[in-house]
Amino acid sequence: MKKIRILAIVGSLRKDSYNRQLALAAQEVIGDRAEFTLLEYQDIPFMDQDIEYPAPEAIKRVRDVVKYADGIWFFTPEYNHFFPGVLKNLIDWLSRPISDKEPPLLAGKPAAISGISPGMAGTSLAQDH
Amino acid sequence: MKKIRILAIVGSLRKDSYNRQLALAAQEVIGDRAEFTLLEYQDIPFMDQDIEYPAPEAIKRVRDVVKYADGIWFFTPEYNHFFPGVLKNLIDWLSRPISDKEPPLLAGKPAAISGISPGMAGTSLAQDH
Repeated sequence: MKKIRILAIVGSLRKDSYNRQLALAAQEVIGDRAEFTLLEYQDIPFMDQDIEYPAPEAIKRVRDVVKYADGIWFFTPEYNHFFPGVLKNLIDWLSRPISDKEPPLLAGKPAAISGISPGMAGTSLAQDH
Repeated sequence: MKKIRILAIVGSLRKDSYNRQLALAAQEVIGDRAEFTLLEYQDIPFMDQDIEYPAPEAIKRVRDVVKYADGIWFFTPEYNHFFPGVLKNLIDWLSRPISDKEPPLLAGKPAAISGISPGMAGTSLAQDH
């Protein structure tokens, strides 16, 4: 049976981020029952419609990783009653159409949310998917 | 009488952004009745607690401009039921304490919000202030 491919996206860039630690703990628990990858995305630019087409290289790379995943698992802290700008920026990119013919990658992608502040982030993300 | 100093912060980086145009139109209407400045902040890094102290140069520059202002006027579009990640990231920075002795710059700073999606953004920003 094909292994489920889970992509973990951590909302904090801090190296010792609690949410990053939580993602790594989840990976350990899952073991070899699924493919579990952590998305590295701190090199992506701010979303700007002026640079959207063609997409920057870092965005293309991130899109490939997201496309490959069967589902996304967010691990995110809360800053100012919402998830961090760094994660919001990533979601702004992923929710944009890739081209005239390709819909946004997040459309229809299963997602789960964990973290120390699932409340508001949960609601907002749910609306994206 | 001292002129009120208004700092306009536009939530979109796009050069022809409607919200940027709205800010410039507001500037024209205000004329010389107030000092009106547009914040340039697209060079700031993603908020990351690992690089917070001492603050990066771009953050120091932005903080000086914000400190100088009597009030902030946000002009922001809505992406995914919230303001863009680029603006969220700026607010994450501005809502952090500058040091042990200096509170965040946004605390107590008067603010107004305009744009095509004042609803949810308005609520969230209001909570910051």
